[in-house]
Amino acid sequence: MVPHPLQILSIDETNRAHDVVVKAHPGAVISFREIFLQEPAKTDLKKFLELEHSGRLSPTTPRPPRLAKVQYDVIGADRIPEYHESIVDVNRATRVKHEVIGKQHHAALTLKEFDTLVDVCKASPKFQEAIAEFNLPEGFEVVVEPWPYGGLDAEDENRRYFQGLIFANDTRSGNPDSNFYAYPLPLIPVMDAHKQEIVRIDRLATGGKGDGLTEKTNSPNIVEHCKTAEYVPELLPNGTRKDLKPLNVQQPEGPSFKITDESLVEWQKWRFRVGFNPREGAVIHDLHYEGRSVLYRLSISEMTVPYADARPPFQRKQAFDFGDGGAGNCANNLALGCDCLGVIKYFDAVVIGRDGKATPHPNVICLHEQDNGIGWKHTNWRTGRAVVTRMRELVVQFIITLANYEYIFAFKFDQAGGIVIETRATGIVSVVNIDAGKQSDYGNVVNPGALAQNHQHIFCARIDPAIDGHQNTVIQEESHAVPMNPKTNPRGNFYEIRQTPIKTSSFADAAPHNNRIFKIVNPNRKNRISGKPVGYKFTPPATQLLLADPDSVQSKRAEFAKHHVWVTKYKDDELYAGGRFTLQSTKEVDGVGDAVKRRENVENDDVVVWSVFGLTHNPRVEDWPVMPVDIFQVNLRPADFFEANPSIDVPSNKNLASVEVYKENKSCCVKGNL
Amino acid sequence: MVPHPLQILSIDETNRAHDVVVKAHPGAVISFREIFLQEPAKTDLKKFLELEHSGRLSPTTPRPPRLAKVQYDVIGADRIPEYHESIVDVNRATRVKHEVIGKQHHAALTLKEFDTLVDVCKASPKFQEAIAEFNLPEGFEVVVEPWPYGGLDAEDENRRYFQGLIFANDTRSGNPDSNFYAYPLPLIPVMDAHKQEIVRIDRLATGGKGDGLTEKTNSPNIVEHCKTAEYVPELLPNGTRKDLKPLNVQQPEGPSFKITDESLVEWQKWRFRVGFNPREGAVIHDLHYEGRSVLYRLSISEMTVPYADARPPFQRKQAFDFGDGGAGNCANNLALGCDCLGVIKYFDAVVIGRDGKATPHPNVICLHEQDNGIGWKHTNWRTGRAVVTRMRELVVQFIITLANYEYIFAFKFDQAGGIVIETRATGIVSVVNIDAGKQSDYGNVVNPGALAQNHQHIFCARIDPAIDGHQNTVIQEESHAVPMNPKTNPRGNFYEIRQTPIKTSSFADAAPHNNRIFKIVNPNRKNRISGKPVGYKFTPPATQLLLADPDSVQSKRAEFAKHHVWVTKYKDDELYAGGRFTLQSTKEVDGVGDAVKRRENVENDDVVVWSVFGLTHNPRVEDWPVMPVDIFQVNLRPADFFEANPSIDVPSNKNLASVEVYKENKSCCVKGNL
Repeated sequence: MVPHPLQILSIDETNRAHDVVVKAHPGAVISFREIFLQEPAKTDLKKFLELEHSGRLSPTTPRPPRLAKVQYDVIGADRIPEYHESIVDVNRATRVKHEVIGKQHHAALTLKEFDTLVDVCKASPKFQEAIAEFNLPEGFEVVVEPWPYGGLDAEDENRRYFQGLIFANDTRSGNPDSNFYAYPLPLIPVMDAHKQEIVRIDRLATGGKGDGLTEKTNSPNIVEHCKTAEYVPELLPNGTRKDLKPLNVQQPEGPSFKITDESLVEWQKWRFRVGFNPREGAVIHDLHYEGRSVLYRLSISEMTVPYADARPPFQRKQAFDFGDGGAGNCANNLALGCDCLGVIKYFDAVVIGRDGKATPHPNVICLHEQDNGIGWKHTNWRTGRAVVTRMRELVVQFIITLANYEYIFAFKFDQAGGIVIETRATGIVSVVNIDAGKQSDYGNVVNPGALAQNHQHIFCARIDPAIDGHQNTVIQEESHAVPMNPKTNPRGNFYEIRQTPIKTSSFADAAPHNNRIFKIVNPNRKNRISGKPVGYKFTPPATQLLLADPDSVQSKRAEFAKHHVWVTKYKDDELYAGGRFTLQSTKEVDGVGDAVKRRENVENDDVVVWSVFGLTHNPRVEDWPVMPVDIFQVNLRPADFFEANPSIDVPSNKNLASVEVYKENKSCCVKGNL
Repeated sequence: MVPHPLQILSIDETNRAHDVVVKAHPGAVISFREIFLQEPAKTDLKKFLELEHSGRLSPTTPRPPRLAKVQYDVIGADRIPEYHESIVDVNRATRVKHEVIGKQHHAALTLKEFDTLVDVCKASPKFQEAIAEFNLPEGFEVVVEPWPYGGLDAEDENRRYFQGLIFANDTRSGNPDSNFYAYPLPLIPVMDAHKQEIVRIDRLATGGKGDGLTEKTNSPNIVEHCKTAEYVPELLPNGTRKDLKPLNVQQPEGPSFKITDESLVEWQKWRFRVGFNPREGAVIHDLHYEGRSVLYRLSISEMTVPYADARPPFQRKQAFDFGDGGAGNCANNLALGCDCLGVIKYFDAVVIGRDGKATPHPNVICLHEQDNGIGWKHTNWRTGRAVVTRMRELVVQFIITLANYEYIFAFKFDQAGGIVIETRATGIVSVVNIDAGKQSDYGNVVNPGALAQNHQHIFCARIDPAIDGHQNTVIQEESHAVPMNPKTNPRGNFYEIRQTPIKTSSFADAAPHNNRIFKIVNPNRKNRISGKPVGYKFTPPATQLLLADPDSVQSKRAEFAKHHVWVTKYKDDELYAGGRFTLQSTKEVDGVGDAVKRRENVENDDVVVWSVFGLTHNPRVEDWPVMPVDIFQVNLRPADFFEANPSIDVPSNKNLASVEVYKENKSCCVKGNL
């Protein structure tokens, strides 16, 4: 069977791409980073999809070539790797593009490089000496938590670095999942990744309010004032609570969704394909509702997590979790029944194993239905007749773990034509050592000796719309008060709606006081009822934007995090809000900031909308040791796209599985007929 | 058994209060409006609750008296009613307070008065003549939809009015639930409620853009250009969809909650009482977590729905759904399995029937557990061990129907100490007739001939905190960028947190660009870990505030809708954000606007926090004929109230009821051991 052009590369295709690259570099030592589907150019894919949707595909229909993007290092004689990217036509077994990436950019990290940091620290006398300065109690072992190196400082050479946050693990429980984050050690080793050596060990301040930027502890008993804080159930002092009764979701007739052609999902008039790549994780392609095109592509493009502790070197705590390490790479295997309820479909991916060969990455995406309360209701008070429907949602979810932290990303589709982009932040907040009894301007003490530093999480979703076709316009719409006047507002109750189409690629911000929303419309197609162009709308969540000083490295490398909405003209391969290379970047290159500078027409054109949202996370004690989810959503809703509520035909059947309890407890009233 | 002081009045108690009032007005004709629990004064109740929580209640413990608030008209010889409110001690069978309400205020409406409007219209020759001007097609019957009269205009006498929106019902289907809203007629009869006569029939403009404020149709074929739009399943042209499979929630071991003492709820370390009254609907009392006090009382206090159509008399479309008609009065009977899934406890209330006597109002509140996705998760990437818990919520829900519209209100409690106040807006948007083929600046055409007018919904939740006791302070907290400087921000990554305690009763607005949050703290109690005062925080949703001109009647009567947060000093009976009397009010009297003017101390004092949020609702075609829910939430979360994540002990048991499907469909990969 010929794979659909949007189907991820199979193991076989991946290995074929691998072999083409090996052949193209005869005699070279190659270290493979990633191999994944290079999606077809939109011009080509559009043609194919039009034929597909009109039922005119045949075995002889020309198809876009199956292309693989291959990312790899060619290791030179000096052992210094040179980073290459090639595009390979896997069926023709030829390389169609080859690019040697300049030294000013760094390839995204691989988990193998993280392992190297751990090994190099262990082997480093310099690091071991530093550790020996501390009187770690009996049974405590050092843990190296590898992190990307944030942005290069002016004094840094442009080399490939990794940094390690260091903790002590109390091994006396014998449980390998004891929470070592409770015992932070105040030093950060920095490794030159190419030389594989520790080039520097930064000593961390441990002071509190009023102690200035460099106050460091003199005590070698560095974890003496710290305290155990476990989260694995068997280590909880009182175990888990006993009074939570099971709540099961059962679907006796199976799911309402249908999966065909490996990744084609059909559910409640929706139809789309699920893709996956090492950088973005799950991607939604070619989204249709009842045969009408809604989105061409939907993904989480980037996120940045800058930390706000003023004391150097904490400015280097700034992750770009998609660009630096790859959300897809860090995706969890979503084991059955632990992460989801009900009837679940799991999708696998293919990644490059430590041997450079393709290997399955199982269960990285899950798909399931869920109930989200009442969908719509009306009671005719004259007759007492209530019609009520539940809102069923289809959820495409993936979860990533980045060292201490996790993010749960979901794309949700509902029966009323709504699309929700959801992120949940959870995991363990990043902590550093603080002297006993002190408080800090840089964060909150969440456990004795553990300061959880203030930080931001700023996400960017990339929405490539295709509202009844690819010619779309983004309109900024606001509601404004109008002063009372005899001519247009005699009683003062009127307010007006103002629309401003975005004509040239640019950015905009949330303005909730003006009820600012953005409508993505097809100006060429009018709704027959309202006479207005068919569209989808969203309200940009008015979350705080990047706080770092504009002249700081943190800020320059995250231009995308400075505005809530970016509107750009579609360009093949322009997928990454923070630019193609984020690891150790000192400024954003070819991200949305540069894209809007092209000042292209975006009116009645092929546009892309980027939605930026996030949270300023000043930790609470309650965020420790694992934080309860913080939930953020962007809602895309049809706005005159349909000719009525699309969920009006959802049945309102009584749910026979529901049960009433404590009926006898209603002593206040005798039941009457009302 | 002696009822708890917060238990709603029983039927017997209600009737006793009724009888006391009848006796107190010998010979008078009395029409009862409402009788419900007058909650004890806080000073008295505090003492009682302290004894209760410390386990020191005994049969001889003094209890606050059981008081009933009785609202009634005394009908004079001239048939003009005089509105009275009495407080009755039901056990001592005496009246303890009596107040005759001045003519400047109007009692909240009763559904009986709505019936009267319908009857008076039917009997009115003036109204029948107006209707006769229209050529209603064969089989169409007139429907009168009673509405409160909005605010009095300057030219109105201060009398008690009701207005009717008029529709035509196509009875040819024989189905009494055919959607008559699809056929709006352009006239509004106005009734003098005391004289029970139609005093005026307002003719409505039917024009579109550019037609000015008064353009009216000349055509008597007023519904000719309108079109059927049904929502009851049996009238849908294509019936309901067939491909939605059942999704059942089953709790084989029963619920995790426990109900005792009629209305005492205990669930997952939470403990509270559920109350109910005709005005506010469900009320949460005396909320504790693990023996610690969190809130004294939580309710939805008021909402206003001003319409923005500039054409008189549409300025009078402005409902105060709590003050005008009573959310409790309009609460739905939540039939089993239709409104909720799983194991459900229903609470009944008591209302005054049309005969003036107490009668049960069954199933007005439901309580159930639900799953809200992942609660927290962490994977130790070294060992691969994932610990993941689901987030279980307890939901206290009530639903109100107000003519065409419905609101679903819920108080949700989670295992991480979080409290969510949720509203869902649904039902049928209010429409008026518009000439064929026109568009309007005042709304959107959602069905041929039906203009859904732009409007706002602005809600106010009343939060009476008791964070570890009644002495609390509200702190406004923001996160601010700090310019790069060598002394405090050498790398530019620092941002600072600024706290401003609110010392005097006042208001504040949302400021999401500054990450403005409000912390309600107990300044006398420090968190042992962080050293900061224990508290709860919330981010005011930055939704648009009231748009009406400040000099308009719409605006003057809804002061509360002009700011997101109000902080007042607690005062007994000060429960209503928009004032005690909203029906036909021309300005807000004794609402939060007046309360803050007392300029009282609110620092380390007994404070009340009012949270205002809502939506500017410019209807979409998709909102028709019944709109999909629009969801709004206010989140209260512990902020250094606990010494760790309170949900850390939630078990992470594998859910055995979950099922994987389409396993065979994973052709891309052979499952390996990773």
